[in-house]
Formats: sequence, structure tokens, C-alpha cells
Amino acid sequence: VWMYCRLYRQFERFRRPELLNAAKAGGEFLLRYAQVAPPAKKCAFVLTRDGRPVKVQRTIFSECFYTMAMNELWRVTGDARYQSEAMEMMDQIVSWVREDPSGLGRPQLPGAPASESMAVPMMLLNLVEQLGEADEELAGISAELGDWCAQRILQHVQRGGQAVLENVSEDGEELSGCLGRHQNPGHALEAGWFLLRYAIRRGDAKLQAHVIDKFLLLPFHSGWDPEHGGLFYFQDADGLCPTQLEWAMKLWWPHSEAMIAFLMGYSETGDPALLRIFYQVAEYTFRR
Amino acid sequence: VWMYCRLYRQFERFRRPELLNAAKAGGEFLLRYAQVAPPAKKCAFVLTRDGRPVKVQRTIFSECFYTMAMNELWRVTGDARYQSEAMEMMDQIVSWVREDPSGLGRPQLPGAPASESMAVPMMLLNLVEQLGEADEELAGISAELGDWCAQRILQHVQRGGQAVLENVSEDGEELSGCLGRHQNPGHALEAGWFLLRYAIRRGDAKLQAHVIDKFLLLPFHSGWDPEHGGLFYFQDADGLCPTQLEWAMKLWWPHSEAMIAFLMGYSETGDPALLRIFYQVAEYTFRR
Repeated sequence: VWMYCRLYRQFERFRRPELLNAAKAGGEFLLRYAQVAPPAKKCAFVLTRDGRPVKVQRTIFSECFYTMAMNELWRVTGDARYQSEAMEMMDQIVSWVREDPSGLGRPQLPGAPASESMAVPMMLLNLVEQLGEADEELAGISAELGDWCAQRILQHVQRGGQAVLENVSEDGEELSGCLGRHQNPGHALEAGWFLLRYAIRRGDAKLQAHVIDKFLLLPFHSGWDPEHGGLFYFQDADGLCPTQLEWAMKLWWPHSEAMIAFLMGYSETGDPALLRIFYQVAEYTFRR
Repeated sequence: VWMYCRLYRQFERFRRPELLNAAKAGGEFLLRYAQVAPPAKKCAFVLTRDGRPVKVQRTIFSECFYTMAMNELWRVTGDARYQSEAMEMMDQIVSWVREDPSGLGRPQLPGAPASESMAVPMMLLNLVEQLGEADEELAGISAELGDWCAQRILQHVQRGGQAVLENVSEDGEELSGCLGRHQNPGHALEAGWFLLRYAIRRGDAKLQAHVIDKFLLLPFHSGWDPEHGGLFYFQDADGLCPTQLEWAMKLWWPHSEAMIAFLMGYSETGDPALLRIFYQVAEYTFRR
């Protein structure tokens, strides 16, 4: 739904009624079936074709993508129902993240460390960007939330600036064990372009330089396979073997994130070193 | 706990007090901390060193391994507390599987197909074997349960006997989609030696031949990599690419299951073809 609407809205060659109609049909399906037990806002992760829930994740991500779809559908159609859905869901998500996660359904176990996955503030920052686009008033209201997200993401730079770690404690310290050492270079690069976009909007040149250094160059150089090329899926900050069997695989999406990040970095700074890395990733990605 | 007790009990060279003491210490730790919210029987999957739960799975497997440990500890020590724990937990597991799974904490979603993972009757059959060892009375009581498990496992032979599928419907039909097509050759071979042991105990030669055909030879021949050797981790019954990224990897444990299964098959039947496959797997497993 989001992709069709965004293509329709921003690219002349995709302004085709069948795209918009498919997006609207999808949006109506989501409005009707996504919430598993209304008025609770929790959304299904998978539904059957006739709208029965197959799987519900105990995270915020289904709801985040629901919000993005509804907001984008509102931008294309002007139908206020979609925007009101988006805003209500956004309030619920922020409340789960910043106040009380119990509505997500995951029991808080006394032995589980209070950890923060970088994905959560990343996703929220992305939503702030989506909802605030061309909406000065909303952008103002959500500025505090954007700042909070950026701060939380930046906390994942650890070990004296030498590593981006996927999971840190609530107060920004490294966690013990393989959970704490877990790294995901493509995800760090994705956080990089989210933060870069945020720094550009804020006009914060110092933050921009920091982000290019820590979220673009650092994960690229430590995550790139020196032997065969390509970005590893997972790494361990101490160089141990990650527990995930698929850690050494080269997936398509980290390379997409890398190309977006380095092209954005180059177009902001004009630094040819960033353009060279973009070409290096593009050559690896498309040559086969 | 189970492994130390079993080694201590069955092998002269492992009859060492430090093994038994470690097993007892582990058993006491489990007695005290494994159950997350007693008197509910649900056990944690991971605990901290001081006994606080880190993770709880919404399946029966932690409880099954708890039962095995307690029963084996009772066999070594004669302490009736352990056996009474094992029997109480076993009753709870059987009730979750055959009567009401709601105590496991996984919500029943209306769109989720009622499917049976082969792991559940396999694990239960293994428990029947563990608890019934050298206990005629208990073996008699649990004979019905063993028959039920074997029947459920055999339902996973699908497509006119040409494929063992990991997940089938409650009434033994193939499920649609990649869930239904999912295969795990090492797991099928493991089910094979569980069933073989069951057929041997029952003295059922016809079942034994069926098991060797469908759970040993079939998964071995379809799961073995003809190019590089070794058993694939996952396969798709239609030959499509499995969704799991690690599907083509060669893991150690499927090869252990294969060696156990073929050696057991050979020692029962004397069929040299089974011994040849044992050697083929052993050579692949140990040569590097």
C-alpha cells in the first residue's frame, strides 16, 4: 500500500489508476482486518486472504508499517479516515515504546536484561519523517520525538566509537554476552541514512559528519568481506563466530541500504570517497 | 543433567562422583527455578545463573527435557522427589498435547491452520521410552500413548509414501504453502530411529521394514547433497528454494541422527546396504 501510493504520488510514470486502486483496496483490507481485537490497536503480522489472523508479533513493527501505509494513502487520496487511523496508531506505538510495552503481549521476565534493539528508535524516526513530511505543524509536534529517536540510535555507537552494536542497555551501556556483541552492518548503514536525513533536516553539520563517520564508513569497513566482497549479514564485535547460522551470507538488502546511504552522503557532502564506495557496492551488487 | 546421569549409570568409565554431583546440583537448580510461576508447570527455556527466567518458549520442549532429566536423576539416585516431579510434568505435557494447549500461552488465532509439527509426537515417544525403561508397569500404562505417538509420526509420510513432511494437518493431510512443503531430512532420520526402537520393542517386523523404507532410506536419498555430499538442513518437497536462509548448510546433528539410525537399522536387520550408508555418512562427517 505504501509503495504503490508513494510511487503514484512522486513519479509521473507511475501515476496510473490501477496502482491507486490496488493501494486503496489494500488500505481498506487493512482498515477492516489488521487489528486483531479492536479497539485494541495490536495488528496481525500475517492474515489469510479472507482476513483471519495467522500470526501476531509481540513487537511494534506491524503497527509501524500500518501507520506508514495509512499516512501515505491519506496523502494520495485526501481521505481523512486514513490519516486519523495513522495518527491514532502512532500515539499507541509511542505509548508502547516510551511508557508501557505490556499491550504488546510479551511478558517481562525478571532475568531478561532491559535491552534496546536499534530497530525500535530507527523505525520511530522513520515514522516521524513520514508523518512530518510537508506538515510544519506536525513536524513541530514530533520534533521532540525525532530528537529522542536520534539520541537513542546514537547510543548504539559503543567501544569508544569503534563499533555500532545492535542491542544496548536502556541507559546506553554495552550488554554482556553475544546479544551485546551482535552487529548487523546493513542495519547500521540503514540507521546511517535515517540519521543523515534527520541531520540534513536539522541543518546539523556536526551531527552529519559524525553519522557519516560512525554509521556509514565504520560499518562499511568492518562489515565488508575483504576476501569475496559484499557485506556480511551479522558479525560479532569481538570477532567471534555469530550464533546465527546465516551470518556470513550476503543478502540483497544490506547492499541496498549501503547504496542509499553512500549516495545520500555523497550528494550532501560532495566527498568523492563516499561516491567511490557507492560504486564499489553497486558493482558488487549488480555484476552477477 | 540427563547426560551426566546416563553416562554415570551406563558406562563404567563415567561412574565418577564429580559427574553425579554436578548432575545433582543441576537437578536441584532445576527443581528450584525451572518453573516460572509455580504451581503452574510451565518451565523457562533460559535462566540466569541465579535462577531468574530470561526466556520462556510457548512449546512443550523445555518441560520434556526437564522430565527426562528428573527421571534419569531418579534412576541414578533413587530419590523419589525426582521421579514424582518427572511424572507430574509428564501428565501436564500429555494434557497440553492431547487435551488443551492453552496453558502454553500461545493464542489460538482463527487464521492459523491447525497443524502438527512432527517434533511433538517424536518428543513424546522419546519420553515414553525414557519413562518406561525397566518399568513394566509404567511401560504398560504408557503403551497407548506410545502407539498414539507412533501413529501421529507415521502420518507425516505423505504424497503416496514419497515424502516425509515436517508439518501436516491435525487429521494427517498435507498443508498448503511452504509450511506444508517443509522438509528436514535430519529430523526425519531422527524420527526414524525413534520409530525403529519402538518397532523393535513391539516386535513389529512389518512396521520396522516400513520405517527403514520411509524414515531412513527415503530422507537419506532425498536429503543427501549429490554434488558435495552431506545432508541438507531444510528442503522443499516441490524442490523450490526453502525460505530459511540456512537451508543448504550441512549441520553436525543431522549426520549424528543419520549414523544412529543406519547403525541401528543394520544391527537389527543385518542388511549391508544400511551399513554402507552408515559408513558413507561417517566418512563425510569425520573426514575433515
